[in-house]
Amino acid sequence: MYEELRARVLAANLALVDAGLVVLTFGNASAADRGGGVMAIKPSGVAYDALRPEDVPVVDIASGAIVAGTTRPSSDTPTHLVLYRAFEDVGGVVHTHSPFATAWAQAGRELPCLGTTHADHFHGAVPVTRPLDATEIAGDYEERTGAVVVEALAARGLAPLEMPGALVASHGPFAWGASVEEAVENAVALEAVAASAFRSLALAPGLGPIPDALLERHFTRKHGSSAYYGQPG
Amino acid sequence: MYEELRARVLAANLALVDAGLVVLTFGNASAADRGGGVMAIKPSGVAYDALRPEDVPVVDIASGAIVAGTTRPSSDTPTHLVLYRAFEDVGGVVHTHSPFATAWAQAGRELPCLGTTHADHFHGAVPVTRPLDATEIAGDYEERTGAVVVEALAARGLAPLEMPGALVASHGPFAWGASVEEAVENAVALEAVAASAFRSLALAPGLGPIPDALLERHFTRKHGSSAYYGQPG
Amino acid sequence: MYEELRARVLAANLALVDAGLVVLTFGNASAADRGGGVMAIKPSGVAYDALRPEDVPVVDIASGAIVAGTTRPSSDTPTHLVLYRAFEDVGGVVHTHSPFATAWAQAGRELPCLGTTHADHFHGAVPVTRPLDATEIAGDYEERTGAVVVEALAARGLAPLEMPGALVASHGPFAWGASVEEAVENAVALEAVAASAFRSLALAPGLGPIPDALLERHFTRKHGSSAYYGQPG
Amino acid sequence: MYEELRARVLAANLALVDAGLVVLTFGNASAADRGGGVMAIKPSGVAYDALRPEDVPVVDIASGAIVAGTTRPSSDTPTHLVLYRAFEDVGGVVHTHSPFATAWAQAGRELPCLGTTHADHFHGAVPVTRPLDATEIAGDYEERTGAVVVEALAARGLAPLEMPGALVASHGPFAWGASVEEAVENAVALEAVAASAFRSLALAPGLGPIPDALLERHFTRKHGSSAYYGQPG
Repeated sequence: MYEELRARVLAANLALVDAGLVVLTFGNASAADRGGGVMAIKPSGVAYDALRPEDVPVVDIASGAIVAGTTRPSSDTPTHLVLYRAFEDVGGVVHTHSPFATAWAQAGRELPCLGTTHADHFHGAVPVTRPLDATEIAGDYEERTGAVVVEALAARGLAPLEMPGALVASHGPFAWGASVEEAVENAVALEAVAASAFRSLALAPGLGPIPDALLERHFTRKHGSSAYYGQPG
Repeated sequence: MYEELRARVLAANLALVDAGLVVLTFGNASAADRGGGVMAIKPSGVAYDALRPEDVPVVDIASGAIVAGTTRPSSDTPTHLVLYRAFEDVGGVVHTHSPFATAWAQAGRELPCLGTTHADHFHGAVPVTRPLDATEIAGDYEERTGAVVVEALAARGLAPLEMPGALVASHGPFAWGASVEEAVENAVALEAVAASAFRSLALAPGLGPIPDALLERHFTRKHGSSAYYGQPG
Repeated sequence: MYEELRARVLAANLALVDAGLVVLTFGNASAADRGGGVMAIKPSGVAYDALRPEDVPVVDIASGAIVAGTTRPSSDTPTHLVLYRAFEDVGGVVHTHSPFATAWAQAGRELPCLGTTHADHFHGAVPVTRPLDATEIAGDYEERTGAVVVEALAARGLAPLEMPGALVASHGPFAWGASVEEAVENAVALEAVAASAFRSLALAPGLGPIPDALLERHFTRKHGSSAYYGQPG
Repeated sequence: MYEELRARVLAANLALVDAGLVVLTFGNASAADRGGGVMAIKPSGVAYDALRPEDVPVVDIASGAIVAGTTRPSSDTPTHLVLYRAFEDVGGVVHTHSPFATAWAQAGRELPCLGTTHADHFHGAVPVTRPLDATEIAGDYEERTGAVVVEALAARGLAPLEMPGALVASHGPFAWGASVEEAVENAVALEAVAASAFRSLALAPGLGPIPDALLERHFTRKHGSSAYYGQPG
């Protein structure tokens, strides 16, 4: 059961390693089957090169119950579940500790849109979450991590598929997309723009974001009804 | 038809990935057949590992009409066309979002000539374009992107083959050459010198360009009638 | 004799190269067999690609005598022995000159805990040792290197398995763990967090450590009796 | 003729690419046969993956005449020859434009000894050459490049095998050794310590060199009659 879903989750987790976003077991990808109300996610702390499709646990999105698989799902599962519940058009979620995106997250700084690579993927600055308070950390920590991501988008009036990523303060990036494959792409793009923004600010310390007109042009080139990037669907 | 041209374009696009200049589908290379008045270019948004020569579209340089291929050409095709029309001795064009060159482009800074690696390839500072205005962005954006590159070289009196690259502000680098193979080489060199210049300025803030005599010596070692680098032609 | 121990030491040394922590012969890993009172360690100055299990020397932990193998053990062997003698629950030790961790060590700065990746592996700031004095350098230098590591943990009241690494001032990182495989993991994690901390401080000069509550939550997620990361043992 | 010498030169040039020190054709390695009074060196501007041993030209060290091979030797050949003539115990020379060492060279800064990795290979700060003047640049430029390297070592009283490298201002690093294999090792070490010194200075801006006692201890661990690093000869 869930054979294709599990295979895609496995491929996505391996793609994160291949893209250099993940070392050791720092990261996880999940994919939702919205029809079935479930998601599949990397098992916790299993070495990537030992992962097999049948190791991938499947979890009910509404209840959090494990519906298939014998391994313990990623310890970040509650965060993924909160995102799937709040972001109804999201089909895949990725969490990494990728080098530059993590540096921004640890610095507690949102990632400004300094160029068109950024605008191709993210509709403005990638938000950073507020810090969790001591009660949140001591309680349902992973759920609260998801909640502050949802809160960060809501506070800025951002739709999940126009802002498919966020930086969790003191922690690292999450990215998502309509599918897990898109979520991986957005995680790769997030790391690339985090790196170039880091270097651009070193070269031009007070640099501000690109003009709104340029942001709109690039974002709508790839997204929405007037998109003209890629092959016709 | 255009079998060799398409194969060279395919090889050039793959070379950009191998050289670490491109992640995802961020980048494109094209090659001109000046006799036929056409150029071949990467299709838009197709994964690099799925590209086949017959996927590569061929476009009439003068009219922009597609003369071969069933895929939609790169969304940056109008930029390439403007460069081929203005730069008559150019046979290949490459666009990337390579990490350090993009950082300079986003910072809106020209890339100063701080060493002989730079002088071996670029005859002085690599120019950065002026920002596009709102009308240009809203209109024929990709054509205007090519136009500001042409404008940047013209304003500095630079010939395209002595300055085979430019940084598009808020965007990223373009490079070109007498052939697409040379364009790839110049894109690789541009990224290497963008990285070393970034680091040299961190070590020596305020560092100025190398003396003109050294620039001339290195540039003419590899270019022009007195060149003595490489094997006799 | 010691076939499995030697094979694990060989694999650990090769894993350091694969992880990009080691170039040339800059680094060494050892594993202890506590029952036998011995440890196996990389031979000195042998190229990694030429290493065979039977080249791996085995050394008595208490006396330092070579008990198996015909090659000279790593010149850092006395440092490893001091660590095994002082840290009784440690089963593996790794020394590298990995790029970012070495930069912190050379700078003489402890590595602050700026994020959860750090807290997952190290229970607070990774200490830097005091400088060795001229007498220590001229005398049993490698033993003294181990002694200042032990001293750095003791001065801060840190248990070796809650702080499985230290930065030797003007030199580079050491990491350890309950096994050599864990020591390698901690060396990889140490380099990753050294890199992200370097970049976070560039983005937010003056950035302080994460709150204690967050440090405790992440550390205890992976360590101790209430751990819930990874698969049940 | 010179079969082994050419094979070693070929292997050394490929090792520079594998170590990430060279992109495109930026770099060259040579090896001397002191008995025969010749050296073999990479041909000029030939792609690394197309190099064959029989392409490697052999040059008389005293006269500079080509004694074997049909290809034009590297344009940097006169620099190599000057180094072989002045440094009699040197058997191999390597020139690269490796990223961090080039950044220091372009910045015109000597590379201070900030740690033991540096001291293991270089006996103190790696010198930077004085700038060439306009006459030198216009004349026998490549010979003068060698001459300022020789001058930089002589001015500091450094023996070539205790300081097996230098930074040519506005250009990049040269490294050498008793053999070409050692020269490659020193080029790899030079890049590694250039990178870690760059980062250490960012973390500790006024950082000074390590104490002389530590420099001596590490240098003599690997060099000279009291060396105890590596296997007995």
